[in-house]
Amino acid sequence: MFKAVIGAEKLKDSIESISTLVDEAKFKITPEGISVRAVDPANVAMVSFDLAKDAFDSFEATDGELGIDLTKLNGVMETADKSENIELELDETAHKLVVRMRGLAYTMSLLDPSSIRKEPKVPTLDLPARIVIRGEDIKRAIKAAEKVSDYMSMGVKGDVFFMEAEGDTDKVRVELAKDQLIDIQPAEAKSLFSLDYLSDMSKILGKANEVTIDLGKDYPLKIKVKIAEGHGEVSYMLAPRVESE
Amino acid sequence: MFKAVIGAEKLKDSIESISTLVDEAKFKITPEGISVRAVDPANVAMVSFDLAKDAFDSFEATDGELGIDLTKLNGVMETADKSENIELELDETAHKLVVRMRGLAYTMSLLDPSSIRKEPKVPTLDLPARIVIRGEDIKRAIKAAEKVSDYMSMGVKGDVFFMEAEGDTDKVRVELAKDQLIDIQPAEAKSLFSLDYLSDMSKILGKANEVTIDLGKDYPLKIKVKIAEGHGEVSYMLAPRVESE
Amino acid sequence: MFKAVIGAEKLKDSIESISTLVDEAKFKITPEGISVRAVDPANVAMVSFDLAKDAFDSFEATDGELGIDLTKLNGVMETADKSENIELELDETAHKLVVRMRGLAYTMSLLDPSSIRKEPKVPTLDLPARIVIRGEDIKRAIKAAEKVSDYMSMGVKGDVFFMEAEGDTDKVRVELAKDQLIDIQPAEAKSLFSLDYLSDMSKILGKANEVTIDLGKDYPLKIKVKIAEGHGEVSYMLAPRVESE
Repeated sequence: MFKAVIGAEKLKDSIESISTLVDEAKFKITPEGISVRAVDPANVAMVSFDLAKDAFDSFEATDGELGIDLTKLNGVMETADKSENIELELDETAHKLVVRMRGLAYTMSLLDPSSIRKEPKVPTLDLPARIVIRGEDIKRAIKAAEKVSDYMSMGVKGDVFFMEAEGDTDKVRVELAKDQLIDIQPAEAKSLFSLDYLSDMSKILGKANEVTIDLGKDYPLKIKVKIAEGHGEVSYMLAPRVESE
Repeated sequence: MFKAVIGAEKLKDSIESISTLVDEAKFKITPEGISVRAVDPANVAMVSFDLAKDAFDSFEATDGELGIDLTKLNGVMETADKSENIELELDETAHKLVVRMRGLAYTMSLLDPSSIRKEPKVPTLDLPARIVIRGEDIKRAIKAAEKVSDYMSMGVKGDVFFMEAEGDTDKVRVELAKDQLIDIQPAEAKSLFSLDYLSDMSKILGKANEVTIDLGKDYPLKIKVKIAEGHGEVSYMLAPRVESE
Repeated sequence: MFKAVIGAEKLKDSIESISTLVDEAKFKITPEGISVRAVDPANVAMVSFDLAKDAFDSFEATDGELGIDLTKLNGVMETADKSENIELELDETAHKLVVRMRGLAYTMSLLDPSSIRKEPKVPTLDLPARIVIRGEDIKRAIKAAEKVSDYMSMGVKGDVFFMEAEGDTDKVRVELAKDQLIDIQPAEAKSLFSLDYLSDMSKILGKANEVTIDLGKDYPLKIKVKIAEGHGEVSYMLAPRVESE
């Protein structure tokens, strides 16, 4: 069984952080909360999403799995005001999820969890550099980089975190020293990433006060934000693009 | 003759409430005010619009009929601020309507009233149930219903007003009990309506504090709002869609 | 050499006032400031742009010419907040312009000035009528005129400044008497202009408190606004369209 009440804004942010990578997802429900692990269709990026029961106004659940069409759920939540509460209830007999808000009940058929791409194993990565940065700063860098290229490198040189994109004639480089960051744990690092993915993620990242980035040398990126007032966490892993030169 | 001054917002709302159904309309002018009766091209919905002379800052008119291109008039009013006054004057010799606002005069040719679809006879309907509801509540229900279907049923069961839309797999149901409505005069009622029409109307309905809905059993819907601070009224009649089952 | 710091909003407005007519422009740099003279591809309109060094927070320059892709520069400035400062620096060796804002450096290749359309000679015109008008008033007239025609005449009759557009059936006429204008120096004048050009210019004009218009009889129009808090000036010259009748 599953029955929970949560603020609309928290739920919207949660769903958006997953739907940025995949259209359908398998939600793992336990008495302690909800989690999702998903990989995008091209196998380039992975999202790990965890929302503790404390993020909810009320939360009752036994172990289970729900296959959810995220596009549909995003659509339903457009009718909710940010400030109102949303009730989610599993109708086990009909295999439907009932979404209730202020007199309105939306009954949504669930997807067969076995029809959804298998959950990925989250690899353990040894990433030497860690940067803690304001969300708006990384969003802005990604937006500028898109003006000149489809790829952006991220790295650390000395005490400085840099993001750089090079086009045929133009170049964007962002350098943020220790005092312009929230925190940095420096180590030589530099990898190249697709801006397509970073741009999608930046909608979520841009809202966060703090974004934690773990980097290596031609290694995947790990990027993490707190959501739902600290009661949840979203982390993305993004494969590097190996430079052809 | 016809010469009148009215606040831009009142005029905008008035024209919009008619142009939601038809592109051209015949305005009946009397010394007491303005009225329009029109039916949409598919003969599914009808609008009755009445604006008393008290809605105007000044109003002088003899009996007459004006054929107006509503799309054009809406366009003209885009250049007006909500707070300013608009003067309307009939130039009988040239058969034009002069729309004046802050130094700007727009001279608009009138349509031949005989070229416009004939005014419908407004049928007298005996609709047993009456619901008075907040405009935003009905707008929200229509918006949610559109996510799952092209049709929405409206009805009363016991003391509860419901709106329901069913898609192939998903369903939206809104139930509003007596205490969530402004008023209800209950009677068994349920009819199915096209969301296309309801959605167009909801732009007007959503702005109103109070929307009065009259319903029967597989019968047309009558839906009514006050406009222009109570000096006018718009009512729509919408034919039901007979369920095929 | 060229190195300067300026508020983002001033720079945005400046570039927009030129890019309204041309996509690329030759910027003339002197120790006293920056200027641009450019003609649109159809040879119908001309812009004269002057920004004094006082508009900048700091300004160091020797004589030179920079060929700038305005579309690109507009794009770069989208990432800047209105309130922040932008640093512009010429990298003479690489022949690039470096645009810096809050940790972000955008290196933009310059265009070969000789590849850009030659600067026009600004003709001296003897335009007898001068009107000083609020920017929003001219913007509004242009917007209304576009509803009925592709052309608008501007003129002075007695003490009244008028703008008029005539379509096949409809007409827009704006008349502004002395007391509705900031100033007028009357003289018989009337010329017809393309609304395409006026509409593009009106984005800049609409923001200005004061727009100065010089008019003659079937003669070009000169239209002038101050920018950058009075430290700069943009003036457009627009060729008249000779009425076919």
